[in-house]
Amino acid sequence: MAEEVCFTRVKNIGLRGVPVADTKVSYIDGIKGELLYRGYRIEDLARQSTFEEVIHLLLFGALPDRAALQAVDQALRSSRDLPEPVLRALACHPPSALPMDVLQGAVPYLADHDPGLSKREKDDVRAQSLRLVAQLPTVLAAWKRIREGQPPVAPRPGLSHAANFLFMLRGEEPDAEEAHVFDVCLTLHADHTFNASTFAAREVASTHAHLYASVAAAVGALSGELHGGANAQVMQMLLEIGEPDRVEAYVKARLDAGQVVMGMGHAVYKTEDPRAPILQELSRRLVERTGQGRWIELSERVRDVAQAEIRRRKGQELYPNVDFYSASTYYQLGVAPDLFTPIFALGRVAGWCAHVIEEKFAEAQEKPALYRPEAEYVGDYCGPLGCPWVPLSERKPGS
Amino acid sequence: MAEEVCFTRVKNIGLRGVPVADTKVSYIDGIKGELLYRGYRIEDLARQSTFEEVIHLLLFGALPDRAALQAVDQALRSSRDLPEPVLRALACHPPSALPMDVLQGAVPYLADHDPGLSKREKDDVRAQSLRLVAQLPTVLAAWKRIREGQPPVAPRPGLSHAANFLFMLRGEEPDAEEAHVFDVCLTLHADHTFNASTFAAREVASTHAHLYASVAAAVGALSGELHGGANAQVMQMLLEIGEPDRVEAYVKARLDAGQVVMGMGHAVYKTEDPRAPILQELSRRLVERTGQGRWIELSERVRDVAQAEIRRRKGQELYPNVDFYSASTYYQLGVAPDLFTPIFALGRVAGWCAHVIEEKFAEAQEKPALYRPEAEYVGDYCGPLGCPWVPLSERKPGS
Repeated sequence: MAEEVCFTRVKNIGLRGVPVADTKVSYIDGIKGELLYRGYRIEDLARQSTFEEVIHLLLFGALPDRAALQAVDQALRSSRDLPEPVLRALACHPPSALPMDVLQGAVPYLADHDPGLSKREKDDVRAQSLRLVAQLPTVLAAWKRIREGQPPVAPRPGLSHAANFLFMLRGEEPDAEEAHVFDVCLTLHADHTFNASTFAAREVASTHAHLYASVAAAVGALSGELHGGANAQVMQMLLEIGEPDRVEAYVKARLDAGQVVMGMGHAVYKTEDPRAPILQELSRRLVERTGQGRWIELSERVRDVAQAEIRRRKGQELYPNVDFYSASTYYQLGVAPDLFTPIFALGRVAGWCAHVIEEKFAEAQEKPALYRPEAEYVGDYCGPLGCPWVPLSERKPGS
Repeated sequence: MAEEVCFTRVKNIGLRGVPVADTKVSYIDGIKGELLYRGYRIEDLARQSTFEEVIHLLLFGALPDRAALQAVDQALRSSRDLPEPVLRALACHPPSALPMDVLQGAVPYLADHDPGLSKREKDDVRAQSLRLVAQLPTVLAAWKRIREGQPPVAPRPGLSHAANFLFMLRGEEPDAEEAHVFDVCLTLHADHTFNASTFAAREVASTHAHLYASVAAAVGALSGELHGGANAQVMQMLLEIGEPDRVEAYVKARLDAGQVVMGMGHAVYKTEDPRAPILQELSRRLVERTGQGRWIELSERVRDVAQAEIRRRKGQELYPNVDFYSASTYYQLGVAPDLFTPIFALGRVAGWCAHVIEEKFAEAQEKPALYRPEAEYVGDYCGPLGCPWVPLSERKPGS
């Protein structure tokens, strides 16, 4: 039960290398470049399963058979509509609101209308999860329309999860190819072990807070530029560069200034991020339809220059991560860059929910207690009686 | 820089005993029962400083002189009003909404209207913090009125932070004694090192998410019954017991069933929680005015019986924690029990903001990286090629 664990503590390492729980949801081998959801390779799932299947896999622990898939699909389709008060609340944001704030703010409103909110069994939390996974895309698409002064587009129950989102976002049904591309994007972003947003969700769930409170925390963590914010920054970089002959100067200038090249490198993968080549292929496939070859070509040129420069400067290999080719993919699908990070959330929410369920229902031995770490106090300490308290009238400025 | 750290890993210990960062905000000695904010004893601050002084202490690192206190006070008073769209958004919740969901949902709406939201310097985040600390009480008081079908009471700039909240909540100005009691309650709850909600706030901030996104996560964590939810459960227990002669049977029945007695014992303090006797005294003082001696008497009887039983059964000492006497205190102040946990947030938000600032602006050596822990994968692993993917038509039920 109790084993001695030692690690080198470089002060404040952001918990790198510190195991905080057991998990069965996903697995990464950063050296080999492997990512597994519930034991299945991300490559197999991306190429052969739909996002609906992946949702089932993550929430229930196994790929669905036909009946189970139908049940999940039915639950999702029947939950897509937003209650009218939620739409009204969305419309209270000014058009300038940050989309991640809108998304985070909406989650507690969705909690209001979940008839099973007070239920606490594992299948109850799975049912809450399916509702939330179904409703988050509707929130984002509705907000996109509302901020542009247009009425939200109601979800269309005949469409898949991915196709329906693009339909609500753009107002017209996507064709099968676009829907497929977006479906694969959702699968690729659905889980990634104990990343910062997932850990935030688990942390909140560990206090016995409900699913919605936990997922709202995760949305907050994903909004950070070191986490989900990166895909929007890749697009900003591509737009800033604009022309292929400016790539070299741009990349060198960033590296000279000690900055990173957005979307290149990963804290966990020491080799290629297995999701990157799949996204690269999707982005290339879209070019045949959109004719917008510029963004993927710019991306590949950035990659080549960054790789060569890092090899030359540091003797290291550098690889694109999941954000790198997301940018050109989403852009070709007609998504505004400030919605890239919220779209990340539409995939990752499946993983957040799976991790919240694991946190809440792990068997006693695997179950983490409420996360309550230590900090090293390095501030004033004047002894057990404390620092001498001084009356207001006797305090000096800046004391 | 790098030191070897070893600890006994009882699997999944909720990070107990694992240091994750340096801090100068607060310090607990759980053996001696000490709590310091920035080096000052909680007893000194509770008895001699106002909550406004404590806000300054936590956010700026020192007790304010008269000019600094005036500046903080002015910033708070001038920020109390809620923008009209935030009030409209509040009114979109049904009266049945959980108050902690309402509070969590409101925080991103407050972000919409912060004119300094995109600014990122330390003083900018302090300014955001003062706005948020000022507005959260208005949110809660407004919601209390809205759910009862009454118009919100506008804040009164002439009142202190504590007095103004009670005024907005109840519609009439509290007297000096009530305002003082509530002021001390806010101070006592303002910080407590790396508790679960504070850690959630820091976790989100570590991704470079903004203050509001971080605090919304903290509200989610506080909502859990293992964390902020406990004070409401203490009140529920007192209401359930009702009569002093039922205490013994109630406490014994809970312990027989392997349940804890709410508000008794603490994960960090092995002796008396230093906040508890201060709250006990406040609760007693209120009795002289309210005549409602029943709740504190019931509390003390529960404490005595629980202590005696735990001594008899386990040979251990058990002490009341901060939640234990909060219950009778808030109840005498006329606060509905389902608002106890949100009121905890009104105090703790000062600490959350101080910790977010510390997370964002710690010097490089003290600064944690984005929190990204490890998990031990204990699920299916069929080798680097993954578990064999099976087409839908060939899957068996429950496979």
